[in-house]
Amino acid sequence: MKQPKQIKKPEGKLGILLPGLGAVATTTIAGTLLARKGMGQPIGSLTQMGTIRLGKRTDNRTPKIKDFLPLATLDQIAFGGWDIFPDDAYESAKHAEVLEHRHIDAIREELTQVRPMRGVFYPEYVKRLNGTHVKTGTTKADMVEQVREDIRAFKKDNGCSRAVAVWCGSTEVYIEPSNVHQSIAAFEAGLAENHPAISNSQIYAWACIKEGVPFANGAPNLTVDFPAAWELAKEHEVPLAGKDFKTGQTLMKTVIAPGLKARMLGIAGWFSTNILGNRDGEVLDDPDSFKSKEVSKLGVLEHILQPHVHQELYGKIFHKVRIEYYPPRGDAKEGWDNIDLVGWLGYPMQIKLNFLCRDSILAAPIVLDLALLMDLAQRAGFHGTQEWLSFYWKSPMTAPNLYPEHDLFIQSMKLKNTMRWMMGEDLITHLGNEYYD
Amino acid sequence: MKQPKQIKKPEGKLGILLPGLGAVATTTIAGTLLARKGMGQPIGSLTQMGTIRLGKRTDNRTPKIKDFLPLATLDQIAFGGWDIFPDDAYESAKHAEVLEHRHIDAIREELTQVRPMRGVFYPEYVKRLNGTHVKTGTTKADMVEQVREDIRAFKKDNGCSRAVAVWCGSTEVYIEPSNVHQSIAAFEAGLAENHPAISNSQIYAWACIKEGVPFANGAPNLTVDFPAAWELAKEHEVPLAGKDFKTGQTLMKTVIAPGLKARMLGIAGWFSTNILGNRDGEVLDDPDSFKSKEVSKLGVLEHILQPHVHQELYGKIFHKVRIEYYPPRGDAKEGWDNIDLVGWLGYPMQIKLNFLCRDSILAAPIVLDLALLMDLAQRAGFHGTQEWLSFYWKSPMTAPNLYPEHDLFIQSMKLKNTMRWMMGEDLITHLGNEYYD
Amino acid sequence: MKQPKQIKKPEGKLGILLPGLGAVATTTIAGTLLARKGMGQPIGSLTQMGTIRLGKRTDNRTPKIKDFLPLATLDQIAFGGWDIFPDDAYESAKHAEVLEHRHIDAIREELTQVRPMRGVFYPEYVKRLNGTHVKTGTTKADMVEQVREDIRAFKKDNGCSRAVAVWCGSTEVYIEPSNVHQSIAAFEAGLAENHPAISNSQIYAWACIKEGVPFANGAPNLTVDFPAAWELAKEHEVPLAGKDFKTGQTLMKTVIAPGLKARMLGIAGWFSTNILGNRDGEVLDDPDSFKSKEVSKLGVLEHILQPHVHQELYGKIFHKVRIEYYPPRGDAKEGWDNIDLVGWLGYPMQIKLNFLCRDSILAAPIVLDLALLMDLAQRAGFHGTQEWLSFYWKSPMTAPNLYPEHDLFIQSMKLKNTMRWMMGEDLITHLGNEYYD
Amino acid sequence: MKQPKQIKKPEGKLGILLPGLGAVATTTIAGTLLARKGMGQPIGSLTQMGTIRLGKRTDNRTPKIKDFLPLATLDQIAFGGWDIFPDDAYESAKHAEVLEHRHIDAIREELTQVRPMRGVFYPEYVKRLNGTHVKTGTTKADMVEQVREDIRAFKKDNGCSRAVAVWCGSTEVYIEPSNVHQSIAAFEAGLAENHPAISNSQIYAWACIKEGVPFANGAPNLTVDFPAAWELAKEHEVPLAGKDFKTGQTLMKTVIAPGLKARMLGIAGWFSTNILGNRDGEVLDDPDSFKSKEVSKLGVLEHILQPHVHQELYGKIFHKVRIEYYPPRGDAKEGWDNIDLVGWLGYPMQIKLNFLCRDSILAAPIVLDLALLMDLAQRAGFHGTQEWLSFYWKSPMTAPNLYPEHDLFIQSMKLKNTMRWMMGEDLITHLGNEYYD
Repeated sequence: MKQPKQIKKPEGKLGILLPGLGAVATTTIAGTLLARKGMGQPIGSLTQMGTIRLGKRTDNRTPKIKDFLPLATLDQIAFGGWDIFPDDAYESAKHAEVLEHRHIDAIREELTQVRPMRGVFYPEYVKRLNGTHVKTGTTKADMVEQVREDIRAFKKDNGCSRAVAVWCGSTEVYIEPSNVHQSIAAFEAGLAENHPAISNSQIYAWACIKEGVPFANGAPNLTVDFPAAWELAKEHEVPLAGKDFKTGQTLMKTVIAPGLKARMLGIAGWFSTNILGNRDGEVLDDPDSFKSKEVSKLGVLEHILQPHVHQELYGKIFHKVRIEYYPPRGDAKEGWDNIDLVGWLGYPMQIKLNFLCRDSILAAPIVLDLALLMDLAQRAGFHGTQEWLSFYWKSPMTAPNLYPEHDLFIQSMKLKNTMRWMMGEDLITHLGNEYYD
Repeated sequence: MKQPKQIKKPEGKLGILLPGLGAVATTTIAGTLLARKGMGQPIGSLTQMGTIRLGKRTDNRTPKIKDFLPLATLDQIAFGGWDIFPDDAYESAKHAEVLEHRHIDAIREELTQVRPMRGVFYPEYVKRLNGTHVKTGTTKADMVEQVREDIRAFKKDNGCSRAVAVWCGSTEVYIEPSNVHQSIAAFEAGLAENHPAISNSQIYAWACIKEGVPFANGAPNLTVDFPAAWELAKEHEVPLAGKDFKTGQTLMKTVIAPGLKARMLGIAGWFSTNILGNRDGEVLDDPDSFKSKEVSKLGVLEHILQPHVHQELYGKIFHKVRIEYYPPRGDAKEGWDNIDLVGWLGYPMQIKLNFLCRDSILAAPIVLDLALLMDLAQRAGFHGTQEWLSFYWKSPMTAPNLYPEHDLFIQSMKLKNTMRWMMGEDLITHLGNEYYD
Repeated sequence: MKQPKQIKKPEGKLGILLPGLGAVATTTIAGTLLARKGMGQPIGSLTQMGTIRLGKRTDNRTPKIKDFLPLATLDQIAFGGWDIFPDDAYESAKHAEVLEHRHIDAIREELTQVRPMRGVFYPEYVKRLNGTHVKTGTTKADMVEQVREDIRAFKKDNGCSRAVAVWCGSTEVYIEPSNVHQSIAAFEAGLAENHPAISNSQIYAWACIKEGVPFANGAPNLTVDFPAAWELAKEHEVPLAGKDFKTGQTLMKTVIAPGLKARMLGIAGWFSTNILGNRDGEVLDDPDSFKSKEVSKLGVLEHILQPHVHQELYGKIFHKVRIEYYPPRGDAKEGWDNIDLVGWLGYPMQIKLNFLCRDSILAAPIVLDLALLMDLAQRAGFHGTQEWLSFYWKSPMTAPNLYPEHDLFIQSMKLKNTMRWMMGEDLITHLGNEYYD
Repeated sequence: MKQPKQIKKPEGKLGILLPGLGAVATTTIAGTLLARKGMGQPIGSLTQMGTIRLGKRTDNRTPKIKDFLPLATLDQIAFGGWDIFPDDAYESAKHAEVLEHRHIDAIREELTQVRPMRGVFYPEYVKRLNGTHVKTGTTKADMVEQVREDIRAFKKDNGCSRAVAVWCGSTEVYIEPSNVHQSIAAFEAGLAENHPAISNSQIYAWACIKEGVPFANGAPNLTVDFPAAWELAKEHEVPLAGKDFKTGQTLMKTVIAPGLKARMLGIAGWFSTNILGNRDGEVLDDPDSFKSKEVSKLGVLEHILQPHVHQELYGKIFHKVRIEYYPPRGDAKEGWDNIDLVGWLGYPMQIKLNFLCRDSILAAPIVLDLALLMDLAQRAGFHGTQEWLSFYWKSPMTAPNLYPEHDLFIQSMKLKNTMRWMMGEDLITHLGNEYYD
């Protein structure tokens, strides 16, 4: 990845295309619209609220990130998306029961205008849902073409100079990468013959890449995490990122585990359970979809704790993650974690963490950030896997043969030092020897 | 602070002197003795268990810190200390009820030989205790001389080439720095006239600095955090560090708050309560001692969250910390935290954290690390405040006019990059652009 | 207490007079108004939602309590009250932020008509508040007369055949019963000479009793719990009840402690902390008011666990209760309890209870029930302390020399068996031998 | 059930026979042995530690239950049992890791003498275990005869005048009652032809009843809860009781649910998860065994809350129970409950309960109590289902067509009033009108 000589300016409109116009997508859209009217704050968004320290601790140079980087502004955004239900963003937001009516009603007109394009829907990948607003076609290759046309039409209708896509749809059933995913040619052949290892999200992604639209994947699905997609992205100079938005319990896990490891405290076991009541919970009640999520969630600790390096501290950790569909919670989500610590001479201690959180409230700022940063990446000339965005993912994509960084603080350092480096500023190391004689 | 051309080798014995031979000190001593016999693991100790990544992620260079830095080994340590009760380390450890009898009895003989020197004890600084094994003398200046003699005698008796001191005594009543603390001359005069702003811990520290013994301060007391002490340390080329071991609830606070801030999640309130039953809890039941601890604990969030920079996220945070004496807990300690989060558009969320921890088990590895790293600092030619050791403190000392870093991950980065820098290795920035074309 | 030959019918209107028209009172009023329009359910109210089993388990006779007892109906109620602020119930309810606007606005007109009469306000009994809508007068005796006139006027204006009062005002500073409380004569003299041990709530109560108005005391204040009040109540044939509504943490304590005791599990310690943010929290931030509350809260365990009988299980219990003012909580309240259990052979176990509750939501149904049951008691010919209503109180009043029952299940059994006995039904013992041969 | 004219005296030795000599059984045996030597207290045992109030509140008659009822004393007990592993009680107790070595070693000799008789073991009923110390025989009828011989031999060898059995073995796979369970004749035929619906525990129970040995069933298995067993018990005048010891999470559920119901607070959802690491956890990791446990655990709320009577409060409750095998917990067990409450006008509140308990520590006193009370029941002339012992069961057996009482406080009242009635004392109703004039 080369330091950009210059980054193209964010001129014209940026289309943000969201496959899956449910709770997360509509919360993102509504919040962005409210924020640009000054009627709400985009809390949780690094690009909008965050600052970045430049230079020495005593320099007092801490601009807002949005003043430091040449990002598209909220006013330049046009939202679009696909869904397998025909509800517009207003109806969908009401149904999601995330935001209060006073928030939704204040921007009713604009929300109503965000009407989903018909979805690609092979039901075998999302078993608990029953779509009605779907594309028809005989091959998956044909579906790709239909999505490409949607993108071109959207850009034209909305006067967009460019677009990015962020997957906000469901978790699909678990799929291992197979031969069909190994090259562009194999994948194109697979599309033509309706290969069963090509799921809905892969079809969207393939279409986006071919249209030069950066693609970020908010679910644990395969989607863009296989060689054929990397090859296509390189060919079309498109940034990719993923996967699975890091919200709720896993977010806290990647905060707490690095803290315990920093102190070299051992861990004998970590039990995590989640109760959640929205459509996501319903989908994850299907064991095949849960498998995708579980794989995504379980990897986190291993990569942070490195049991192969710290055998005596983490070599025998028992890690279990459960997700439970619990309708009384609605869109809210609740995590309960028990951590069995091992201290000095092996003495046990325990941590219990109860997180009463809200899925879409935590995901929305991530969607906005990713859209703006993926667009920036493209304008900076980056393509393929954007590992510097690991900060946002439960299961970050990396170059092959490179282990992912899950530690939120390493991810944050990577993100911010990349920002500094893109803009020609000194990297921060926290050495700070200069303050002492 | 200059990069050391070379660091003196750790030859001969290192005396570790602990004012306060209670639960923390005896747990440290016992654990170190067991570890050097291979009968227990010094879990929680970065110097003994930790590793450090050198070079690129793909280099696979991750030595143990003890193999990377020229530290004294456990075999080279001789333990000593002072206390206001005459119990030897074996008796004191049994009374503390931290370690199981099987652990204490396995090293009974060695523990028995650690007999405390008589303590400096002006009772007005620690109201709930009643010392019996104390020095007599008419002035505080005289007390300083007695402690200096103790140090010289200890080194001679134990054949130590050098020594370090780590304060493991009680929290003293809250004392603001006053005129007497502004210069060596003023302080020496104060010692001579028994100035009331000079407490027990300051007397120990002054003696140590004069003897060239690095001093780390495990309590929130003033001790070495004032201009006269800095001046004396410079004159004698002695490293200082403090203050207040970062264990338990505050440790977790400096893990979680940076995580929430990294994600730009707002915080409306943070309520922390602690229940603890040991001598520490009894001392803190005195409002004046609690004041010292409270000041130490409250500063943490402000420095991490920077409400002046992030007014809209942290400007109105309501932060309350309570410590409750609760005898059924014994040496174990329990923290309960409630955090009121504010997300996207102002929607509220909550985190509850329940930490069933053990004070001395968490503090012991810190005492050991500090002793070894302070000795290293001295051999590397560093003196005065060792900010790179902020990682270990609830309330890190810094150069005047420099804000302290409380974020555990910044502290860890600072610590490890300082280690790399001391040894001439590249600093780590996590940029990692070299892995991508 | 004699079994009533017949209970007077609830003819005409019942005035419910609430000294203190804040969060609890307005939530009660609004909920009752909504319930009688069928726009909300009076959940938590035994008189409205509860049932009572009559006869054998196989008889299937389980009427609603309101169909079993001759209670006033919701349609027969007229609400009134006093406050030291002039806001009507609509304004006050909005300010309290307990109920959503859709609930308050649906009955705006009726709420607006509930305008507080001027309050009796000697500020030394409630230090953190500053009343503006207060009565003037030179003696406390004069205040009593003014309140009596208020009652008579209210009854006349609203066409009430009778009235009851339920104290919904603040916790007052702790007052021990003194000579002035020992007889009617002493108390009347005290009123005339503004005796400092006679607080605001006592003035209201004295006026009510003299007007034949049953009085229930929702705060831990002395109010009606002293010999002079008992004597006056006997003379005027007025029922009294108190004190301190049992909501939140104490409610749970009187549920869990009896359960542990039923199983003969020992308790080594019980630590309770509360965080709350409303006016109640602000008042309790004053140590003198907290004293009243603390005494009320601490007695609970002793009476349930009977350490004098079960020395080996409860003789050394360490019980600590903290209340913390924490504005981010608003009217919501949160309790956290840690219970240290002792089991078979002394092995320890722990319970942690976190109750995210809402003060006024829990108190409102109690206010309604007490009003209706105190009116019933009066019509049944009962007077003086109504111990059968212990169910509703943190600190139940009893006959002198009788220990209070705090166990919620004994209280519930006492309440329901009293109801059965009043109506001539068999008492329930749960023996049930008749179902087996 | 007739009031006994007189209860036979507990003369001679009482054999307590425990099928399943694992953690629960050995903890019971060790604790009983320690208690009778005065080396430990049988905490949690109502028969040993409990008291019973007799007469009026002011009578001060509160004898210990063991002084009130003619129970066998601890000195009169002889322990025996069966297991599918050959370890004696000393080895088994050490392996269980429930009790500390100092407790086990103090009674090593006596424990060593408790050697299990060979177990009945058809492995299809307990899938995760692999027994080695098992009986051989061609039919289940033959197994019954072998167990009968064991009982007779044990009584003779130990000089017992009588015996009782308490099932302390594993949870078996879920079995619905079928034709074979409908009569003595059908069951005897089933035994002869190895009917698959007859499990190990049923074989033990059948043998016990035929030998006149009262049988209490500590697991959720069918065991003695079917018509043929009732018929046989009647014929042999043997008391039966079950099923599934009420410990841990369900114990707390039957404490808290009645408290919420007493106050008519609604419940929208109750989520319960358990983590446990002992053999019990391993067995329950098998879905078929979990089914038995789940059925036992889920019924609790329905019977307490009576959703058919209180449709608006409990009609839509979502109740989910999870049990998770988590080896770091060992024999300790941890429950986490989330309860979604509904209050006044439908406003939501939440309770979180975290119970750090110990399975065998809670179960042991129940085993002892049941043994002594079942023996008492037999001497009092009671036979068949002992519903008055519901207090001890997760899923109490009742007469056909009678709903079970799950409310711990109703159960406790039933237990204690039955004790009073057996001994000719007045029943307690808590009316208490006599204390007021």
